[in-house]
Amino acid sequence: MHTVELIKPDGRELTLYGRQPLASGIQAPSPFPAPLHANPHLRWNPLRGEWITYAAYRQDRTFLPPREYNPLAVTADASHPTEVPPGNWDVAVFENRFPSLSTGAGASPQLIVPSAPAKGRCEVVVFTQDADSSLGELALDHIELLLEVWADRTARLKAVTGIQYVLPFENRGAEVGVTLHHPHGQIYAYPFVPPVPARMQQCEIEHYRKNGSPLLTDLMRKEIDAKERVIYVGTHAAAFVPVCARYPYEVWVGTLEPVADFTRLTADQRRDLARALKTVLLKYDALWQRRFPYLMAWYQAPTDGEPHPECHLHAEFYPPSRARDKLKYLAGTELAAGMFAMDALPEDKARELQAVKVDIDRP
Amino acid sequence: MHTVELIKPDGRELTLYGRQPLASGIQAPSPFPAPLHANPHLRWNPLRGEWITYAAYRQDRTFLPPREYNPLAVTADASHPTEVPPGNWDVAVFENRFPSLSTGAGASPQLIVPSAPAKGRCEVVVFTQDADSSLGELALDHIELLLEVWADRTARLKAVTGIQYVLPFENRGAEVGVTLHHPHGQIYAYPFVPPVPARMQQCEIEHYRKNGSPLLTDLMRKEIDAKERVIYVGTHAAAFVPVCARYPYEVWVGTLEPVADFTRLTADQRRDLARALKTVLLKYDALWQRRFPYLMAWYQAPTDGEPHPECHLHAEFYPPSRARDKLKYLAGTELAAGMFAMDALPEDKARELQAVKVDIDRP
Repeated sequence: MHTVELIKPDGRELTLYGRQPLASGIQAPSPFPAPLHANPHLRWNPLRGEWITYAAYRQDRTFLPPREYNPLAVTADASHPTEVPPGNWDVAVFENRFPSLSTGAGASPQLIVPSAPAKGRCEVVVFTQDADSSLGELALDHIELLLEVWADRTARLKAVTGIQYVLPFENRGAEVGVTLHHPHGQIYAYPFVPPVPARMQQCEIEHYRKNGSPLLTDLMRKEIDAKERVIYVGTHAAAFVPVCARYPYEVWVGTLEPVADFTRLTADQRRDLARALKTVLLKYDALWQRRFPYLMAWYQAPTDGEPHPECHLHAEFYPPSRARDKLKYLAGTELAAGMFAMDALPEDKARELQAVKVDIDRP
Repeated sequence: MHTVELIKPDGRELTLYGRQPLASGIQAPSPFPAPLHANPHLRWNPLRGEWITYAAYRQDRTFLPPREYNPLAVTADASHPTEVPPGNWDVAVFENRFPSLSTGAGASPQLIVPSAPAKGRCEVVVFTQDADSSLGELALDHIELLLEVWADRTARLKAVTGIQYVLPFENRGAEVGVTLHHPHGQIYAYPFVPPVPARMQQCEIEHYRKNGSPLLTDLMRKEIDAKERVIYVGTHAAAFVPVCARYPYEVWVGTLEPVADFTRLTADQRRDLARALKTVLLKYDALWQRRFPYLMAWYQAPTDGEPHPECHLHAEFYPPSRARDKLKYLAGTELAAGMFAMDALPEDKARELQAVKVDIDRP
């Protein structure tokens, strides 16, 4: 992996990553001339026991791009700068101009509930220079590079004071609110372990204490033995529709052996994890012969410097579709009670995905 | 409140509620001639520590109604029965024909995670006979009746073995997946306290132990003193955009004094709660001069027979809109991490709702 670190004219960091050595002298562009002054704040919801972040300045965006403008395309004309420069890079990472969390956050308002500066960081990860491609269509070694990029970001963000949790994710498709179709993901670095990973870790610690092995490792072995919901099994990684899926086409992807976070993946594990990931993504797109919407989230250990033997790095895909033209809406029982109700059995949805043939080695 | 209890031809219960005495001899219709055999099951998600319910038979609905058929309209022609009979009733409640939870649930499959019959109950609450009306447009004494109906359902469901939590809610609008526009809500009766109310109760118990008063009662007093986010204050009830809103137009509605559940509301409290509720609903619809989509959930004490002095019955409204033509999508940070990110400040959204003038006493 080759990297170049740059600073944009507005003060934001940009890192370029390549499979090949990167050209020198690259300048970081920014569509925004003025320096970034992000000051999001947190408010405590005492009834749910959780923080909410408020970034009201996100509404004040004065920058109104033309309809066809793609800020994630490389800058072609210096008088109309985008977020990324030309060059032979494969993946680019930069700080979000309108972050929900920012290391620069300072004062927070006096309120009737606790408040705090929303320290943290929001990064944009451009997966490729090709606006018409997608994560699943990238070459296997390009996906492997992305896994290395996520490891590098995790290591860097871990070094930032106060960061407790690093979550790489991708929102894909208009169905999940994405209007920018250039292949990209995001990374949120939180100043606390957020509710969902916190609950997960609590379950994982309990299991580890009782069994001496990570919960997900044990569950994954059972899924592989049961076979019926498995989508991919390789030498180091697997993918399956979990027996307890909450979304009809939910899929989990992970290494066979437990690995606590991205920084601890071996090259062999990355190689097979890229194959597992590409298999799932190509099957999704081939299922209905069209781009499949999803939320992909990568869960790893908190970045508190502890070893976390209970954690097992993995991705969970939450597709919003329940059929070709039907969305699964989250409503009363899901949002208000937190109990998901499913019309579809995971076994049936796994069978549909198993039946889709894809060739991940096709260039 | 006047009630009539009936049994549908397929074995499901139907209860009619009226402000006036109800005619005798009413027969309960059903669009489904065959008896109900619902057998949903629960699966345990060990990584999130929560139950998910699976009701695969919901997909097998052979009943295909014509396009304009409204199953919640009164039966006009006995050869095409709907779910509710003609008569002078105001509110009707019946068991969902395709329930996610059912007292009839029996066997559950052997799986690699714990499973259980999905015991419980799902009810449909028809708010009015008028298909073109809405909850907010009902007369104040009709809304008061509905509050009594929710109390009656809570009491009845509490008496069903194994029911731990009763959640009345309304999903409203195509934006939250509702295709049937006849004014109606639902009630889920769970065999456990689901994750969201469980977390809420944990926070409420901690607060009560420390302060000797319910968390929401204390917070509501602070909201009323602060004034800036208040939408309604009456003699017994209030409504406000909470300081820690997770949705731009989120509103909470509750009694001023703590009341643990619907069954313990006094007539005076119901009267003012109906005024608070109607105020919020009319403001929502008047804001953009069109039907405002929302999820309305009523949180009350678990139905375990304990007194629950920590609980304070209230409704939370989660509207999916962030502007007239913009939805707030739940994506990466909300669904994967559980941390909500807000572009709008609750103070600004409260000001918008405060500026909308409505007349709840207009007949």
